[in-house]
Amino acid sequence: MVDFKPKKLLLRALAGERTERPPIWLMRQAGRYLPEYHVTRAQAGGMLELCNSPEHAVEVTLQPIRRFGFDAAILFADLPQIAAALGQTLEYKEGEGPVLSPPIRSPADIARLSLSRLHEELAPIYETVRRLTVALPSNVTLIGYAGAPWTVATYMVEGRGGGPTDHAIIKQWALSDPDGFQPLIDLLTDAIIQFLDRQIEAGAEAIQLFESWAGLLPDVFFDLWCVRPVAKIIQALKAKHPETPIITFPRGAGLRYDGYAQATGADGIGLDGTVPLAWAAEHIQAGLGRCVQGNLDNQLLVAGGPALPAETDRILAALGRGPFIFNLGHGILKTTPPEHVDALVRQVQSWRA
Amino acid sequence: MVDFKPKKLLLRALAGERTERPPIWLMRQAGRYLPEYHVTRAQAGGMLELCNSPEHAVEVTLQPIRRFGFDAAILFADLPQIAAALGQTLEYKEGEGPVLSPPIRSPADIARLSLSRLHEELAPIYETVRRLTVALPSNVTLIGYAGAPWTVATYMVEGRGGGPTDHAIIKQWALSDPDGFQPLIDLLTDAIIQFLDRQIEAGAEAIQLFESWAGLLPDVFFDLWCVRPVAKIIQALKAKHPETPIITFPRGAGLRYDGYAQATGADGIGLDGTVPLAWAAEHIQAGLGRCVQGNLDNQLLVAGGPALPAETDRILAALGRGPFIFNLGHGILKTTPPEHVDALVRQVQSWRA
Repeated sequence: MVDFKPKKLLLRALAGERTERPPIWLMRQAGRYLPEYHVTRAQAGGMLELCNSPEHAVEVTLQPIRRFGFDAAILFADLPQIAAALGQTLEYKEGEGPVLSPPIRSPADIARLSLSRLHEELAPIYETVRRLTVALPSNVTLIGYAGAPWTVATYMVEGRGGGPTDHAIIKQWALSDPDGFQPLIDLLTDAIIQFLDRQIEAGAEAIQLFESWAGLLPDVFFDLWCVRPVAKIIQALKAKHPETPIITFPRGAGLRYDGYAQATGADGIGLDGTVPLAWAAEHIQAGLGRCVQGNLDNQLLVAGGPALPAETDRILAALGRGPFIFNLGHGILKTTPPEHVDALVRQVQSWRA
Repeated sequence: MVDFKPKKLLLRALAGERTERPPIWLMRQAGRYLPEYHVTRAQAGGMLELCNSPEHAVEVTLQPIRRFGFDAAILFADLPQIAAALGQTLEYKEGEGPVLSPPIRSPADIARLSLSRLHEELAPIYETVRRLTVALPSNVTLIGYAGAPWTVATYMVEGRGGGPTDHAIIKQWALSDPDGFQPLIDLLTDAIIQFLDRQIEAGAEAIQLFESWAGLLPDVFFDLWCVRPVAKIIQALKAKHPETPIITFPRGAGLRYDGYAQATGADGIGLDGTVPLAWAAEHIQAGLGRCVQGNLDNQLLVAGGPALPAETDRILAALGRGPFIFNLGHGILKTTPPEHVDALVRQVQSWRA
């Protein structure tokens, strides 16, 4: 029997296809800029409760789909949940964001972490994914996700994930005692492979790996803790789920974007706001035949005005012929007016290659 | 008559020469990690008083030269002083760093700024430079400096220069009303040309332009507010002072490093910690024949241990054959143990190409 169902737009772009118009979704699209998100979060009783309640997590995942008609939904969960599943205590403190205790700062601290309760702790997330496969409109792709090992490690070692930080603690430890620090990356690599495998089993159709802190490390250590673990994760997932595309987002990788894209073997490369569009078109889209994703400035989406559609057009003109997924260069800000998002989605979805 | 005085090591490197060993200095080398700095600052009566007292500013500029024997001294002054010279009020608040008021947030605010008192306000800095030409050992190069226009503008618009910030105010204004914002960049470009011209007249032998926030802007705006103004500054200074080399430090420029180096025409290119050493050797040293400067991790210099000399060696092996100036990838941190700096200087100065 022939399968007549057309493949979803986002999956076609990730397969390297030059689609008739780019799919669009926004990083952190389910979140605090939406009034309905605050209602659901209050109903759940807090952030941790929201993340661990499939009913409420499904609801907030669906909210931006209903409101804007994005082409993809990203599983609502929080990046440090995997640290809690390995044995740290996760709390959300008002104004501070996630706090992980005790912080991991020595080989002995690493040794106390364990994979033994991983899936038990993360079970609510798998259940959220399962419910979303039923609840989402048929043209919307469900993206599962995890933080990449180095980025999750920054949360675990610093002990916090919110707000600006100079990452002094993790950098001083990791750079001065790379052998003592390495087992944390190895443990996280294993945990993330298992976590994403289960998300795919539960119904995630694509995966994004967030390397939010790719800009912190000198070359050798970037290779050791950003490139190699992500390559290993992608290789392991591809071996088991060759049909599931993987997007990486090495924010701040700078001149290392090209090598990172090649060495990790990701299907899609998320671009931060510093990546020149012409470079991405030439080196990633044409050169490697890979899909790129990005990279509208999130502060411009807050500001709006005529510069917003102009900049959106510039991105579409440079990358829109694909393979391309429209997104921001960083997560959406809580100060973003929802009507700016609505206008953006209309503009991208009515554009034609 | 023949001039027998050998040209200073740092000036030879900036002229594109492959020196027998790299010169070394560190960004913010005169500063809070040195106990003697705190003594002098207290004698001066505060940060603003220190910056505006040639006697004390000369003393703190000399302190790291005496202690470590760096190959260059950088004029002690603070980046936002030029904003005060244009009409803002500059104060230092404990724990907040420099505060500039009222913040510049509209074309009307820009119109109230003026070049008329620029040199009067900056006269103590010129006097510090003049005194340093006499006070410095004959083998030490005197580097003058300024912030680049976009970076100074971030201070002026945000109203503060200390601590981490998401630069929401300047980005939302500049990106949504580029025509209204542009005159601030134009004014700063003129002011910085005049400021650096006077520093060179007073005896600065090389200039560094700090573009600490090169990573904030999408391509078109990066070109408009980072590349073009710096190219204009360098062109104007070269027309009048063809012998004075200029270093630029576009921190966070990422994939735009190459284009920035070419378009601005700087003699030396400061590398942040994300720039791969092999890339810099191939594209900047060999490809453009230009001097590179950088890029040891400042947190590793705090941490120390065997990884510090190992990473230093790796940088020397990759870039040391020149043209090269050893430096950090970002300013030295106040938590840095002076003995780590001493060991670093000994290692670099005893290395041979």
